[in-house]
Amino acid sequence: MFYVGVFVIWLSVAHTGGTGLLVPRFPRPRGPVLRSQYSYDTKYFTQPVDHFSFTTPDTFDQRYLINRKYFEGNGGPIFFYTGNEGDITMFCDNTGFMWDIASKFKAMVVFAEHRYYGESMPYGKDSYKDPQHLGYLTAEQALADFARLVTHLKSSIPGAANSPVVAFGGSYGGMLAAWFRMKYPSSVIGSLAASAPVWQFEGLTPCGSSYSIITEDFQKGSPGCETHIHKSWDLLTQMGRTAAGREKLSSMFSLCFPLNTSTDVGTMSQWLLNTWFNLAMVNYPYPASFLEPLPAWPVKEVCSLITASSEVLESIAAGATLYYNYTGQAACLNIEESAVSSLGDLGWSFQFCSEMTMPTCMDGIHDMFPPQPWNITAYIIQCKSTWKVTPRPYWILQQFGGKNITAASNIIFSNGLLDPWSAGGVMESLSDSLVAITIADGAHHLDLRSSNPADPQSVIEAREQEVQIIREWLQDYYSKL
Amino acid sequence: MFYVGVFVIWLSVAHTGGTGLLVPRFPRPRGPVLRSQYSYDTKYFTQPVDHFSFTTPDTFDQRYLINRKYFEGNGGPIFFYTGNEGDITMFCDNTGFMWDIASKFKAMVVFAEHRYYGESMPYGKDSYKDPQHLGYLTAEQALADFARLVTHLKSSIPGAANSPVVAFGGSYGGMLAAWFRMKYPSSVIGSLAASAPVWQFEGLTPCGSSYSIITEDFQKGSPGCETHIHKSWDLLTQMGRTAAGREKLSSMFSLCFPLNTSTDVGTMSQWLLNTWFNLAMVNYPYPASFLEPLPAWPVKEVCSLITASSEVLESIAAGATLYYNYTGQAACLNIEESAVSSLGDLGWSFQFCSEMTMPTCMDGIHDMFPPQPWNITAYIIQCKSTWKVTPRPYWILQQFGGKNITAASNIIFSNGLLDPWSAGGVMESLSDSLVAITIADGAHHLDLRSSNPADPQSVIEAREQEVQIIREWLQDYYSKL
Repeated sequence: MFYVGVFVIWLSVAHTGGTGLLVPRFPRPRGPVLRSQYSYDTKYFTQPVDHFSFTTPDTFDQRYLINRKYFEGNGGPIFFYTGNEGDITMFCDNTGFMWDIASKFKAMVVFAEHRYYGESMPYGKDSYKDPQHLGYLTAEQALADFARLVTHLKSSIPGAANSPVVAFGGSYGGMLAAWFRMKYPSSVIGSLAASAPVWQFEGLTPCGSSYSIITEDFQKGSPGCETHIHKSWDLLTQMGRTAAGREKLSSMFSLCFPLNTSTDVGTMSQWLLNTWFNLAMVNYPYPASFLEPLPAWPVKEVCSLITASSEVLESIAAGATLYYNYTGQAACLNIEESAVSSLGDLGWSFQFCSEMTMPTCMDGIHDMFPPQPWNITAYIIQCKSTWKVTPRPYWILQQFGGKNITAASNIIFSNGLLDPWSAGGVMESLSDSLVAITIADGAHHLDLRSSNPADPQSVIEAREQEVQIIREWLQDYYSKL
Repeated sequence: MFYVGVFVIWLSVAHTGGTGLLVPRFPRPRGPVLRSQYSYDTKYFTQPVDHFSFTTPDTFDQRYLINRKYFEGNGGPIFFYTGNEGDITMFCDNTGFMWDIASKFKAMVVFAEHRYYGESMPYGKDSYKDPQHLGYLTAEQALADFARLVTHLKSSIPGAANSPVVAFGGSYGGMLAAWFRMKYPSSVIGSLAASAPVWQFEGLTPCGSSYSIITEDFQKGSPGCETHIHKSWDLLTQMGRTAAGREKLSSMFSLCFPLNTSTDVGTMSQWLLNTWFNLAMVNYPYPASFLEPLPAWPVKEVCSLITASSEVLESIAAGATLYYNYTGQAACLNIEESAVSSLGDLGWSFQFCSEMTMPTCMDGIHDMFPPQPWNITAYIIQCKSTWKVTPRPYWILQQFGGKNITAASNIIFSNGLLDPWSAGGVMESLSDSLVAITIADGAHHLDLRSSNPADPQSVIEAREQEVQIIREWLQDYYSKL
């Protein structure tokens, strides 16, 4: 699980304007990981830039991480992580579940990097130059990379020729894991798709659901917390209208850069909104330091600060400070922090503006946020203007079947009920082999993290069920060999 | 069923040289059909040239033919032909089975043209100009066209929103029908893949099998026929070495253009080889005029001429004359006839040279043909030189699963035992819902043709079984609505 938020690359449009774009993002630390807690070899595999046409002969080197310590050959299993929108080392380091169970299954562990992220740049520094270079950044191309890499591993590693492959992925990587099994069932015997909002697309899920879940999370964190946050937006806007008000806000929130204009105040609103979204994502039951160093159950901690005082903005400032400065080492808070800061952010913004049309919205009634409707026209106009591409908002539905996916098999869809993204997930089993697992006390793919003494019973049971299903896939595979 | 043959675009390389390329081709009349026996509207639907990348905003109009006469709305079925390598009007006119059963099922009938054939040219007259224009001619792009067209039909035609779609296709179109169900199961509830050699790829099927089947067909046609043909190649080469011999051959075969060089004799060999291949394809039980006007069971007719005399080349000439001049209206025989004559031929040659690497070979031992091994190195070199693209000989295996396709469902693979292409087909059922139907007396997708009083019992039963299975798919679909 990784940094998620509402991310607007055209930050000059304030979120209250009604025309701004909400780019839903998944949580992701800024990575790369320099010293991993896990050991692996770093390898590269040459891929065509375009798998589906013959207009270009260009190729690039896809990075993957591999550990063969537990693999004993003889067709033992391969656990294959379908990398998402970021440096693969981060996903490797934050998917402890695969490492925890690899020895039990004598499995080879592979983390495949997604094209256009980390080191897997098809055109080096020009990769993001223009649509002619960047346009090959699609889920379909990434899945084809994975399929070819799987074939390469099986054909080149001794004892792997008959190895069954199980895919794992979380968040967008979970969507890819599910789609990998749907589209390439000969490459992968089954997939664990953790916190994968495969239905967060046009017409499948109400656009506001994830914000309603966040609101419930905060209400549970401390009753009244959601009311304080709800009230904060107008107060912020009002106070931000005058220079004196902006000065007071800058001081109250210990901002690194003072608010100079009302546009800055809009940016601050967006930053706070991102903060609460991210906080809900990483609401883990133990201290963790994924996006920011945080205590156990950080929503509860932040909310008890927010509800401790009736001074709304001051209490909000205290909450935000806990999130950004739990260790006390931050000298100030930086409202630009949730804006574009890496190619990873840029890449997801492009994907959102091309085929990953995942509508989100807020109404301030079913959620605690300032109203911001989903406006597909504005989305298209702004995507064209920013990326010079025309989005295809309905293509993913046709490519991956929308809600009509029962022809597929052997996919586990796991979702934590605390996770905003569970709104777009598969929450009920669709067949004997399309199994939904819900984790009552789980935030964003808690199940993919390493086991922890503070794990709630719900995630312990989810992991046990996942292991049992994977074991059944493998038994079924070997019995048919 | 359509014109199939061994087709060499670099005709200067004689087939006996061992370095020539065999481009396996499916039968296809030269079309378009000017006056169809069926009635339909011609429509166009705008498609992106590239579904899987965002490097180009280009679009084109895909042609499709539609008949709504039997369709009563209310979610009645759509019978959808996945067009193959040629003008769609030809497939429409030669797939009578769909028309025969449409009224029974109250089905809408749609024939979708494959991109880069017929009128569906992404770049008009420049479509075949170079890889930058032609490179979008791939099966994956064509399937994506079909998926978008299905969505368009269902969303725009009153009463079709909940219509189940059944795909039909023969030959390469049958491969597409099967792959359409595999890759887009939300678009299509099931597929009839007739005479679809989905396993005629590297490593899946011995490359010589289709030529062995042709040899058996001719042996059955008249014992000794295959021996005569077997002997003919050397005799032809020997006689072709001298000017006098070439003159004699030209006269014996009533050639339109006299043989001037030994290269011409090589071309003639290739033409004869194509002739026998095509003849085996269209070995139908009643007079038909698909490639050429022919009597019922034309292999038997040709073979009785071939075995009537011990003068090998003269008897071969008599057999070839029956094939090309059954009606007595041809003044001469044209050995260039099986060479490139349309964009359709060119298109398939490009597909063969990019991703449709379907190896074929002859050894003169298990078949009656001059030895011509499959040489993948020569294939790659010649494809690069001809089309300026590097083939991906293993990609189709990874993209569509090779022999590992049991995760799919609801596909009928029908094959005639007389059909050379049955060698690369699915000849045994793989599961309850991947059903193989063999037609003892069938040539190339006889089952897709209109019913005929001379139909053998085997094809009558095959069609009954197909109708029954389609009915079950539909019942299953409606029961779950």
